[in-house]
Amino acid sequence: MKAEIIAIGTELLMGQVVNTNAAVISEYLADLGIDIYYHVTVGDNRKRLKEAILQAERRSDLLILVGGLGPTEDDVTKQVLAKHLSEKLVFDPSSKKKLEDYFAQTKREKTANNERQVLVMENAKALFNHVGLAAGAFLQKNNHCYAVLPGPPSEMKTMFTKELKPLLQEIVDENEQIHVRVLRFYGISESQLATKLERLILEQTTPTLALYAKKTEVTLRLATKSKSTSEAIKRLDKLEQSVLATEDVVSYFYGYGDDNSLAKVVVSLLKEKGKVLTAAESLTAGLFQSTLGDIEGVSEVYKGGIVAYSLEAKAKLLRISEASLLEEGVVSEFTARMMAENSMEIMSADYALSFTGVAGPNSLEGNSLGTVWIGFARRAQTPVARLFHFSKTRQFIRESTVMCGLDILRRELLKN
Amino acid sequence: MKAEIIAIGTELLMGQVVNTNAAVISEYLADLGIDIYYHVTVGDNRKRLKEAILQAERRSDLLILVGGLGPTEDDVTKQVLAKHLSEKLVFDPSSKKKLEDYFAQTKREKTANNERQVLVMENAKALFNHVGLAAGAFLQKNNHCYAVLPGPPSEMKTMFTKELKPLLQEIVDENEQIHVRVLRFYGISESQLATKLERLILEQTTPTLALYAKKTEVTLRLATKSKSTSEAIKRLDKLEQSVLATEDVVSYFYGYGDDNSLAKVVVSLLKEKGKVLTAAESLTAGLFQSTLGDIEGVSEVYKGGIVAYSLEAKAKLLRISEASLLEEGVVSEFTARMMAENSMEIMSADYALSFTGVAGPNSLEGNSLGTVWIGFARRAQTPVARLFHFSKTRQFIRESTVMCGLDILRRELLKN
Repeated sequence: MKAEIIAIGTELLMGQVVNTNAAVISEYLADLGIDIYYHVTVGDNRKRLKEAILQAERRSDLLILVGGLGPTEDDVTKQVLAKHLSEKLVFDPSSKKKLEDYFAQTKREKTANNERQVLVMENAKALFNHVGLAAGAFLQKNNHCYAVLPGPPSEMKTMFTKELKPLLQEIVDENEQIHVRVLRFYGISESQLATKLERLILEQTTPTLALYAKKTEVTLRLATKSKSTSEAIKRLDKLEQSVLATEDVVSYFYGYGDDNSLAKVVVSLLKEKGKVLTAAESLTAGLFQSTLGDIEGVSEVYKGGIVAYSLEAKAKLLRISEASLLEEGVVSEFTARMMAENSMEIMSADYALSFTGVAGPNSLEGNSLGTVWIGFARRAQTPVARLFHFSKTRQFIRESTVMCGLDILRRELLKN
Repeated sequence: MKAEIIAIGTELLMGQVVNTNAAVISEYLADLGIDIYYHVTVGDNRKRLKEAILQAERRSDLLILVGGLGPTEDDVTKQVLAKHLSEKLVFDPSSKKKLEDYFAQTKREKTANNERQVLVMENAKALFNHVGLAAGAFLQKNNHCYAVLPGPPSEMKTMFTKELKPLLQEIVDENEQIHVRVLRFYGISESQLATKLERLILEQTTPTLALYAKKTEVTLRLATKSKSTSEAIKRLDKLEQSVLATEDVVSYFYGYGDDNSLAKVVVSLLKEKGKVLTAAESLTAGLFQSTLGDIEGVSEVYKGGIVAYSLEAKAKLLRISEASLLEEGVVSEFTARMMAENSMEIMSADYALSFTGVAGPNSLEGNSLGTVWIGFARRAQTPVARLFHFSKTRQFIRESTVMCGLDILRRELLKN
């Protein structure tokens, strides 16, 4: 089954609203094993919407129209689709009751155009709006399926999952049920990984294999359609083994799933080992610790740390001699090691990472933009420091530094 | 001039990436006075991309193709467009040099497919990529204009504003030259501001007035078309005065321009006054300091600070008595004030902000999710603390806290 999403709204074409609905609906459809080949956006314009519907009917089986269900004259989605399909628009009783209750409760005046929101095509199944007022609809007619959803993302999401999804599941052939596995990699670029996996990518049939370059990492999506879950898992296991058996690939692989991150993996490993981490940050200015702070339950393994942006702060907060900082330089192996060691002592932590380098715009102490030393201290071991060179923007240099620090710790935690 | 945006990428159709580019480009085009009637998204598929190009040529003058310029075989945008326009693909010398320098500097291995990124159509003007490696292109041919831009948003934005915008400005009719002024607001919601400005919005002719809800703030875009810059400025001034004269609106207004932020305004004000800021962060875990660290030249007014996530860290790093912390609670007016005061002393700063609260998932000390105390210390004055209640996700609570802290400091700096 091929689907196409048509988003309706002039605010989308003006750039006032980002079309997040298209992404969310696509993800929902992918999970149902429904293929999507096109997203289209048109304004609140009858003629252009009609043309978009005609075009979608020529190339897709399922048309999902989202937006333009509101109370104003601008909102034309239902009207255009109903006219095109020669359907009468009638009131949906449940939705109309909700609308009336809403206006009674909030003591607002209900203007006539408000009732437009609860109109549905006569032969369609009304989709109840659990969050807002505008009713959606689902109709199978002339070998096509049509779904109409409201534009506000929270209304759309609830209507899709509670109302539309069960209907779509009924009509999707069981054979088409899709099974997906996401593998996450850090430290290898999209093109390097693509080169290493070239043979597997070229030879792919099922499961399929797709690479996605994220900001500072790469994900690999394995997907297969199958009636049997165990059969699907077997196939995914086999392909995953081939991927990870490819020369050198496994060392960059750090975890599974769309809702995962290097920071989450590191926090889990720290919890598992019962270890506590701290950090002393210069160029990253708190970004490393803030990345940890984003993870629920991190307080078990992270208690706090220091942002020592200037030379004076490195001396004062991290108790490094100012003379040595001046002599060795703030962007140096010495400073990175001292920052890590002293912050570990101060916080009585098991591990400490430190970051000092040049985020730009100017070079520093003769070090060019993107030069970064990362220090790493472990209880009862000599601290170490490694030199890196990052590039692009100030923000990207800082983000790359954070990811690199997380990876150093992850590799260490896997050792023991 | 009518434009159409074609986004290319299977990851968009799978819902793995939200098509923010379409919104951003639409906003840019609106600023140039160029109308947009369609957004289209297709996957990494030669046939469907070709069809999208043919369709766009029938209904639009300017085609903007974004995405699919990467190094892998999947990336087909340039290849499909070049073939369709009977253009040869050749290397762009500047982009090729950047590519080679990049691989030399980072000591990475350059695989052959990397060079695909720096190909451009022979008769096109190459658009240099200041952030990444893939070159863009602009070509006028057969009564149409074609622009090719990279998919990663930071690369696209820089290429559009630095490279493509001047070229588009040249071909846009002078009468259509649009003059835009962006006003930024913090502390008021989009709907509140819309209500206050209702009359101005309803009566708008020229300049037009559009509201954009950003993550934690609202921007107001004033735009007018005029041949004369001075006439346009006069009109924008007049409307701006009406906006800011509206009851209570001016107090939320903090600055001008798309490339501005509350943090930038605060850093500028600190520089102007020659004052130094520090921070002590609990729930934000470094996000406030990292937000400052993102701004070039911040080292003049920010030297470092402390992340005191746990109770022990508040005691140890900020020298607050553990007994008092236990008695008063870590989420309390007392703790927020002590955190601010002590960090100001430790760092010998002129101002200190502190953040302590509940980012979730659980409540803390009987305080519900989103409860946040922000402390504020000033040299030679008694520290103060204010209580806030934020909502939604962990990340959003932390981001709202940071914005709120910046706003407290901005209002203070404007006083003196």
